[in-house]
Amino acid sequence: MAYSTPRGTRDLMPEQALLLEDVLDKVRLVFRKYGYEPIETPAFEELEVLEKKSGEEVRKQIFRVGEGEKLGLRFDLTVPLARVVAGNASLPKPFKRYHISRVWRHEEPQKGRFREFYQADIDIVGSAGMECEAELLACAKEALEAVGLEHLEIRVNNRKILDAMFAKLGLKAGAMQIFRALDKLEKLGAEAVEQDLRSLGLNAGEVDALMKFASMKGSNDEKLAFVEKNFGAAKEGAAETRELLALLAEYGVKAELDLSLVRGLDYYTGPVFEIGAGGPLSSAEERGPFPLGRKEGGIGSIAAGGRYDDLIGLYCGKAVPATGISLGIERLMELLKGKAKRVTRVYVAAAKDEYRNEARKIVVKLRKAGIPAQVDLMGRKLGKQFEYANAMGIPYAIIVGEREIKEGKVTLRNMKSGEEKMLSLDEAVKELS
Amino acid sequence: MAYSTPRGTRDLMPEQALLLEDVLDKVRLVFRKYGYEPIETPAFEELEVLEKKSGEEVRKQIFRVGEGEKLGLRFDLTVPLARVVAGNASLPKPFKRYHISRVWRHEEPQKGRFREFYQADIDIVGSAGMECEAELLACAKEALEAVGLEHLEIRVNNRKILDAMFAKLGLKAGAMQIFRALDKLEKLGAEAVEQDLRSLGLNAGEVDALMKFASMKGSNDEKLAFVEKNFGAAKEGAAETRELLALLAEYGVKAELDLSLVRGLDYYTGPVFEIGAGGPLSSAEERGPFPLGRKEGGIGSIAAGGRYDDLIGLYCGKAVPATGISLGIERLMELLKGKAKRVTRVYVAAAKDEYRNEARKIVVKLRKAGIPAQVDLMGRKLGKQFEYANAMGIPYAIIVGEREIKEGKVTLRNMKSGEEKMLSLDEAVKELS
Repeated sequence: MAYSTPRGTRDLMPEQALLLEDVLDKVRLVFRKYGYEPIETPAFEELEVLEKKSGEEVRKQIFRVGEGEKLGLRFDLTVPLARVVAGNASLPKPFKRYHISRVWRHEEPQKGRFREFYQADIDIVGSAGMECEAELLACAKEALEAVGLEHLEIRVNNRKILDAMFAKLGLKAGAMQIFRALDKLEKLGAEAVEQDLRSLGLNAGEVDALMKFASMKGSNDEKLAFVEKNFGAAKEGAAETRELLALLAEYGVKAELDLSLVRGLDYYTGPVFEIGAGGPLSSAEERGPFPLGRKEGGIGSIAAGGRYDDLIGLYCGKAVPATGISLGIERLMELLKGKAKRVTRVYVAAAKDEYRNEARKIVVKLRKAGIPAQVDLMGRKLGKQFEYANAMGIPYAIIVGEREIKEGKVTLRNMKSGEEKMLSLDEAVKELS
Repeated sequence: MAYSTPRGTRDLMPEQALLLEDVLDKVRLVFRKYGYEPIETPAFEELEVLEKKSGEEVRKQIFRVGEGEKLGLRFDLTVPLARVVAGNASLPKPFKRYHISRVWRHEEPQKGRFREFYQADIDIVGSAGMECEAELLACAKEALEAVGLEHLEIRVNNRKILDAMFAKLGLKAGAMQIFRALDKLEKLGAEAVEQDLRSLGLNAGEVDALMKFASMKGSNDEKLAFVEKNFGAAKEGAAETRELLALLAEYGVKAELDLSLVRGLDYYTGPVFEIGAGGPLSSAEERGPFPLGRKEGGIGSIAAGGRYDDLIGLYCGKAVPATGISLGIERLMELLKGKAKRVTRVYVAAAKDEYRNEARKIVVKLRKAGIPAQVDLMGRKLGKQFEYANAMGIPYAIIVGEREIKEGKVTLRNMKSGEEKMLSLDEAVKELS
């Protein structure tokens, strides 16, 4: 008779929900420190708004809303941003906003990949300068570190470099299927990608050239030199990359130019980037819902983004440069599983029914002092009150009994060690603060 | 060419979104102090789950989701709670949870009443004791005060009293249409309610008796004595009310027994309650989306709830007592309009292009010190940098120019007064902290 959540969705029970709040609070604090301010937009949008940007693949993933109304749940936070910017021409530029909220995708659920998930995005609208990308990456990295991640790896590339390389090969610039195949190089290995490319109709020479390009090793400078030598049209992309890497160094942020990095979205126009974290997860399937994770055996990308200078123009007819990065919250939560702190600090237990009033008075005083406290609401005996406090992971109990009342004191009990001491309430408050 | 949000929904631009975050942060902190822990549930549920509880009126308000899938957006946070509790029999009781999230209702939008809005709920599951209601009301009141509200008025009633009164009149206990008519007494006045009751088929004697009962004035004790004298079957409801009022007094919380208070939901079984705030709003239409507001010219209810001992049983076949209260967040935001603080504390301006590097270095140091800071991302001249800082409401600027670099200092400018002083960066950090 139990009812479950809809397919591909889940409940967050208290420990998980506390972890979510903790992650979002920390991320938000860093976003604010960098001067980003929040917006919030409706969960659903007009279908026309959603479909303007999306390719066929994303279009299929839209959850329809309403009956006869042409509405759909948003599948990311970038489309709502584009609509907001297009509709508010007077916003001071750069418009730096964060948006932390849920999105929905009607795709096949997998372990750790949900139909409803959280994103935490920062975007900068109105500036074409590489200062933007540098700041976004520094901010995202600091946010991930604030949450407790270490060994973060930043990879960057530039669509202008990819386009130039494609042009040289006589391939259609930005051919998304080829982009997507290349993007899986690190995840699936060279052989699988070569096969994919052949099945897309590329001849042996094209496949070889692409693979040589995408799997090039070396320092950032060596790669840039290679690009500039071989693909003349990539000059602008190479210059942007060089500038971005220099600005990142100013922020103390290291990054690797990875020529196989594409990112799946077809509206990127310049720099693309992602942040991964070292360290293994138990299986590829457990890497969470963040799309396009890389590196089998590693954690894959936990943040990703790019520049999309043409997108907002679709909504207002006027070019507005923009760039952004999105943090995958579910993946962060998975990495931090079991690390949430419970809320209540102390349980005030009445040894007998006649002391229940006194227990309630004490709990009022504790809360006034800012200490999260609870008292029995079930008419339970002392033993059962302790059982509840233990089940809830409450670290301390204050016990109110005959002796305590007589002496005007309380007994403070450490629920883990069992240690008890009699104190004045003020002393107990100090110990608990 | 501008695209708008779907009918009945809205964007929250940065100042409003900051206000929302501020309100929710404050409310959440108080909920935690009382020992409530969060849960989160999917935005949509199986229609079967949503429709189990709701009357016809609510059913019409469900936004359908998906194509061919029987899903709908949740219209409140109580149904998801009931499903969660029913599906997790081993949860320690009492289960005290808060849930702060969005809900959706497909009803006719009005000014200040949206199809998408926030609720902040606390509920206690597993206990039938009046300690629960007392704690809920004390907690909700403190949360509203934490947000900045004053002159809060708490009204309570008990469905058992209403049922007994109905039984005495030979009316069907819990007849929702009559309940709803009565509930509007304070809002619409006696004449309108009498007319409503007559149009529901009540005869003159019944209307008189109902009106006499619902509009009774006097102290809480006088009302309880009247109830006990006239409606024998209300004994239990009167006793519960007496106990609740005594427990509230322990918390230092005053409440008024209001015999016309019904609350529109048909699943309440015992105490019902609401919290209103004194002070006028400009018009009745501006009172926000919280349902069933009362008191024309006042702010109406900003929090409301009741006991629903039979609801969870619908989902698990086993009676589980529960009670809860819901805060209307949009209404709170409206009351606090214009009170949000902007995020960025200082803008670091480069007097000339050659000092841009130095400006970026300073902004990195400020952020390290926890001070929200921004630097130009647009390649702007000094005057335009100041214009932006002013447009964003940033209170201070740090200026980096030739003299500052030479002396190893910065100029700290108060953007409002125009006052400037030269300081070491450390001194500036201290002033800004």
